Amino acid sequence: MILITGATGGLGSALAKLYSEESPVLLSGRSEAKLAALAQTLSGDVTTSVADLMDENQIVQLLDTLPETPKMIFHCAGSGCFGPIETQSAKSLTQLVENNLTSTMLFLKALVSRYQNQPVTVAVVMSTAAQVAKANESTYCAVKWGVRGLLESLRIELKGKPMKLVGVYPGGMATEFWVTSGTDMDTSSFMTGEEAATMLKQAMPSTKHGYVSDITINRQ
Amino acid sequence: MILITGATGGLGSALAKLYSEESPVLLSGRSEAKLAALAQTLSGDVTTSVADLMDENQIVQLLDTLPETPKMIFHCAGSGCFGPIETQSAKSLTQLVENNLTSTMLFLKALVSRYQNQPVTVAVVMSTAAQVAKANESTYCAVKWGVRGLLESLRIELKGKPMKLVGVYPGGMATEFWVTSGTDMDTSSFMTGEEAATMLKQAMPSTKHGYVSDITINRQ
Amino acid sequence: MILITGATGGLGSALAKLYSEESPVLLSGRSEAKLAALAQTLSGDVTTSVADLMDENQIVQLLDTLPETPKMIFHCAGSGCFGPIETQSAKSLTQLVENNLTSTMLFLKALVSRYQNQPVTVAVVMSTAAQVAKANESTYCAVKWGVRGLLESLRIELKGKPMKLVGVYPGGMATEFWVTSGTDMDTSSFMTGEEAATMLKQAMPSTKHGYVSDITINRQ
Amino acid sequence: MILITGATGGLGSALAKLYSEESPVLLSGRSEAKLAALAQTLSGDVTTSVADLMDENQIVQLLDTLPETPKMIFHCAGSGCFGPIETQSAKSLTQLVENNLTSTMLFLKALVSRYQNQPVTVAVVMSTAAQVAKANESTYCAVKWGVRGLLESLRIELKGKPMKLVGVYPGGMATEFWVTSGTDMDTSSFMTGEEAATMLKQAMPSTKHGYVSDITINRQ
Repeated sequence: MILITGATGGLGSALAKLYSEESPVLLSGRSEAKLAALAQTLSGDVTTSVADLMDENQIVQLLDTLPETPKMIFHCAGSGCFGPIETQSAKSLTQLVENNLTSTMLFLKALVSRYQNQPVTVAVVMSTAAQVAKANESTYCAVKWGVRGLLESLRIELKGKPMKLVGVYPGGMATEFWVTSGTDMDTSSFMTGEEAATMLKQAMPSTKHGYVSDITINRQ
Repeated sequence: MILITGATGGLGSALAKLYSEESPVLLSGRSEAKLAALAQTLSGDVTTSVADLMDENQIVQLLDTLPETPKMIFHCAGSGCFGPIETQSAKSLTQLVENNLTSTMLFLKALVSRYQNQPVTVAVVMSTAAQVAKANESTYCAVKWGVRGLLESLRIELKGKPMKLVGVYPGGMATEFWVTSGTDMDTSSFMTGEEAATMLKQAMPSTKHGYVSDITINRQ
Repeated sequence: MILITGATGGLGSALAKLYSEESPVLLSGRSEAKLAALAQTLSGDVTTSVADLMDENQIVQLLDTLPETPKMIFHCAGSGCFGPIETQSAKSLTQLVENNLTSTMLFLKALVSRYQNQPVTVAVVMSTAAQVAKANESTYCAVKWGVRGLLESLRIELKGKPMKLVGVYPGGMATEFWVTSGTDMDTSSFMTGEEAATMLKQAMPSTKHGYVSDITINRQ
Repeated sequence: MILITGATGGLGSALAKLYSEESPVLLSGRSEAKLAALAQTLSGDVTTSVADLMDENQIVQLLDTLPETPKMIFHCAGSGCFGPIETQSAKSLTQLVENNLTSTMLFLKALVSRYQNQPVTVAVVMSTAAQVAKANESTYCAVKWGVRGLLESLRIELKGKPMKLVGVYPGGMATEFWVTSGTDMDTSSFMTGEEAATMLKQAMPSTKHGYVSDITINRQ
């Protein structure tokens, strides 16, 4: 069983397509309509579950939906907000923080509580914006650096436990993400969500004593 | 004129004391009672202004209170929340994010909008938790890494402008911060807020072509 | 064609085995005897070439040996030196720096000169010691941080060019590396060089617009 | 007593001037002539000692010259080498590594051996090139990242001991460094070595429980 959050956008939906071809998947997002539309395009054992990860009760319900302990969880939920900081509204900043950092805290808190002693791999999808500072992405970098600090610290808390955290850092994807975030960037040479998903999926299989703990995927 | 946020706690109040001896200061915090009590202990040209930095209007009012462009701003506001992530409530996580990251975004947004073309030095007080990952401080590290990502990105946006951002990273201070955050740590060998303030203040004077852009202060 | 340096040890020989099953490979190392012994165990189109990467002429000769532009180059050459710094001899420190940092500078200089305008992927194998500081590995961390700084800077120089640099960060492998470096560590739960090579190889295939630029492989 | 290595150049000679006004200083460098010329310009208790830090015996002799345990040591020795990597000769790369990384390993090894249980503060002068990657400074960044990895690791080895390591990261100084390294940069807006030395010196005094462990000094 594989759980994917943020399954209706970019990398999430591409992962949903790839994994649903070989495993039962539970797809989550905030929009019931988008989840239904996505499920329509997929065959295989596909379940959907609407959840707002800012609400702890909805996180509990989402995890209760799982018929078994998931082998892998891809946490793709997130949103963007770009431009010079003085052009960003208080409302959009607050939502950016909630959508990316606070919700990830609540989601990882629930996963750690429930699964820390089980062999569950949790891939947390961030961005190359979590690794460097960027002009006109100051608040987006802020929340992604925040998620990275959370991930790196939780790894130390989980040391020696079977639950594993994988940091995923994609850069420069051409997804609707850029459209909805209001930027005007030419994304024609960017990699697609499908390409990033393909590379992420092929890198995920672990061995008896090892696993890929961090992976950065960039455009050519 | 020097503006200090989070002036009623730890490093903030120690900076208030030191700078009020030689310059007009405007002290800000969320508690009117604490600000009044602090002002009682200080002589010199001391003004206080209550402001909740999660509210953009209150940030505007705070800055409007200033009779002139401040030469230096020390942004000390922040709060702590510690322990394994599964022991932290959703409410405390949400407040942690707001008190440290979202409010800093809103405050720096206002400062950049208003002062980017003036010689204002803004010292953003974080913590050594912004530089490394730590077990049992996962969410605190997350918000501090977030502030650091914000600061580093804004620096690039401000390149060539007279407004300067200074990153301040104190570690291991013995302030009431640790008491109110519910930890049970022996802080007898920690440095005091006064010590950290003394070292920070002595490092701040800039020269014609240079300034201290980042400073980490640790206990011996 | 695939070129592997440091092919006689740990990860290098495991990569040699895996890639020689499907592609012509050129294996390089400093020991002719070890290279010959390794080649004996492999079938397929295997060539060996002795080269000391501290000698620019030998680097030129090594690259001249290649019958065509290599598609991928795995730079695995390196050595270890551990323990508190005061226990390490001047000679072993000097060799550590040469074996890991200076030789990598010379090798990457030659690769950039020759291949920067061709679609060559160069995977530079470092260690998790390039990402964090570690007691009793101070000089090893130093040289690995150095290689990382080189790689990250060269990436900026190569921006927009078809030559790609991949950062590989394995941690905790059970190879003869630990024996020859004189440590006394229990490596029974470490991953083998074969495991790390398997995960690295499966992560390497790129897509039209994207590639894995950095990968960290840890033991479970 | 204060010991300064690399005392004949840039920041080193500016520190020599400032500290010699108030404390006995021992100044070291590789050029006897330059040391003598520098000493001529200084009053106070000034001693000079020629030492090549690539030679362990000369390091021992240098430290034996000290009449007492030094309170502070400023390790300023280093050199530069810039431009695209393919334009740098093998000889200049090798010297760059020796002058910056290998010699610092040997020097810090000697200091740790001799002083780890004494209250000695060792300020290791690097560069902002130790903190970020830069095009056309790939090998310079490499050696500076290396020194930083060494420093950060030794700090963990020294944890709880009275010897302290301070990381100093100056950026954009207008010293003869740039002339001798063959770059053609306009340094008129850069800060002078005197400015950087002034800011570093004013930041160095520690308190009972605390000290400045890292300081970055940038041009305005």
